Amino acid sequence: MEDKKKLLEYFKKDRYIIKNGIEIIEITDNKAVCKAKVTPEHLNAEDVIQGGMLYTIADFTFAVLANYLHGKTVTQTAAISYLRPAKDCLEIRAVAEELSATRHNCVHKVTVTDEKGQTLVIAQINGFIF
Amino acid sequence: MEDKKKLLEYFKKDRYIIKNGIEIIEITDNKAVCKAKVTPEHLNAEDVIQGGMLYTIADFTFAVLANYLHGKTVTQTAAISYLRPAKDCLEIRAVAEELSATRHNCVHKVTVTDEKGQTLVIAQINGFIF
Amino acid sequence: MEDKKKLLEYFKKDRYIIKNGIEIIEITDNKAVCKAKVTPEHLNAEDVIQGGMLYTIADFTFAVLANYLHGKTVTQTAAISYLRPAKDCLEIRAVAEELSATRHNCVHKVTVTDEKGQTLVIAQINGFIF
Amino acid sequence: MEDKKKLLEYFKKDRYIIKNGIEIIEITDNKAVCKAKVTPEHLNAEDVIQGGMLYTIADFTFAVLANYLHGKTVTQTAAISYLRPAKDCLEIRAVAEELSATRHNCVHKVTVTDEKGQTLVIAQINGFIF
Repeated sequence: MEDKKKLLEYFKKDRYIIKNGIEIIEITDNKAVCKAKVTPEHLNAEDVIQGGMLYTIADFTFAVLANYLHGKTVTQTAAISYLRPAKDCLEIRAVAEELSATRHNCVHKVTVTDEKGQTLVIAQINGFIF
Repeated sequence: MEDKKKLLEYFKKDRYIIKNGIEIIEITDNKAVCKAKVTPEHLNAEDVIQGGMLYTIADFTFAVLANYLHGKTVTQTAAISYLRPAKDCLEIRAVAEELSATRHNCVHKVTVTDEKGQTLVIAQINGFIF
Repeated sequence: MEDKKKLLEYFKKDRYIIKNGIEIIEITDNKAVCKAKVTPEHLNAEDVIQGGMLYTIADFTFAVLANYLHGKTVTQTAAISYLRPAKDCLEIRAVAEELSATRHNCVHKVTVTDEKGQTLVIAQINGFIF
Repeated sequence: MEDKKKLLEYFKKDRYIIKNGIEIIEITDNKAVCKAKVTPEHLNAEDVIQGGMLYTIADFTFAVLANYLHGKTVTQTAAISYLRPAKDCLEIRAVAEELSATRHNCVHKVTVTDEKGQTLVIAQINGFIF
């Protein structure tokens, strides 16, 4: 377990996350939660949230939990499934949970939902633990 | 095949892509190429390009090629592999190629490299063709 | 919901599954469970269970649950993570759960464990519902 | 580069592959090729080749090439896309190519086609190199 305060300080240096308006809401031994208010800058040409933005919040929420649980951990591979178009969403929220971990590898499930509780994205993310 | 000019106009409405500084460089029957100059806003707390940014350029380059080849196509699932940390990169470039397509589904390979030609990311992206 | 008895009859025609010694143990609204006794024919050159066999039981367990919940459903894409070598296992067991579903698509998580409860494999499987 | 003869001897101990009728056809610096004659034992309840069998030949062909190029290498994660039902196929053939490799990781693309040249499956497979 890492020190939660230090971790929050550390992630304040992630400029991509700050620019995208992604905030860490909760870190526990069982899950991490992040959210973002949807702005026009998150939208694609169809006025739905860009797939890259949905991936970004999912991958970052994984990073928060994995770095908390295991110290330095990076994404090695990820698989993402888009369930429905993210149309007319006001806020998105990602929840990461660890499914399994060995000495150098972990697998997390991340779910991204909108403010109505609809699932937008499910991802399986594989981390390398240093 | 879609009209290339119209497609370029269409993608100008993608605010997430514009904000991220991603530009379409080339569209042919065989591939699409996009690039982005790396800025501090693309970096994470380790000063390497955020995984979300690398995914975003890969997924968008897929979208450019798939929409050109098949008309409206959306990402359904994607698998991404990170090969090395994207440290000290000046520019990244994504190339999408179609591996196979049926009436309603296509599979593309996308490779993201830096200006030295090092591979940062390889993705297999599955699209649904409307 | 499909008729459970008919479904079990239907899957008896799956010769690949029978040859591999995979049995359906449980089907409920929340999960499907399959198991297989490990035999020498499941092993690779390193005497561990072949990755293909682990994938096969995972994918089949998904098929059992998805066909039960939605009628005819096929695997469209799948992502599999191998957590540890499946060495000296006597029996493997796969549990499929549905994470989300829309009209034509569903996403399941499948976990394969050995008789000691160690996780061997985690998969995220995307089905197309007819 | 490993000794090709020794490698072929080694893979003769893979009982799962032998039982499934999968043969190594070619190993070069650029690709590995395997094939299998389709038998009733490869089929599922719909009389199409079981997804597990298609995965198995893909993953094994990756293993052949990766072990040839890098010595001991195991599959860490894999993403597979099914393009069409493998109906009425007489023979399937898998071709693995390496897309990229670093010291401890490699990414391969594997394509499985039938005897008419139709693509059945495309996979992106990530190996850990010991």
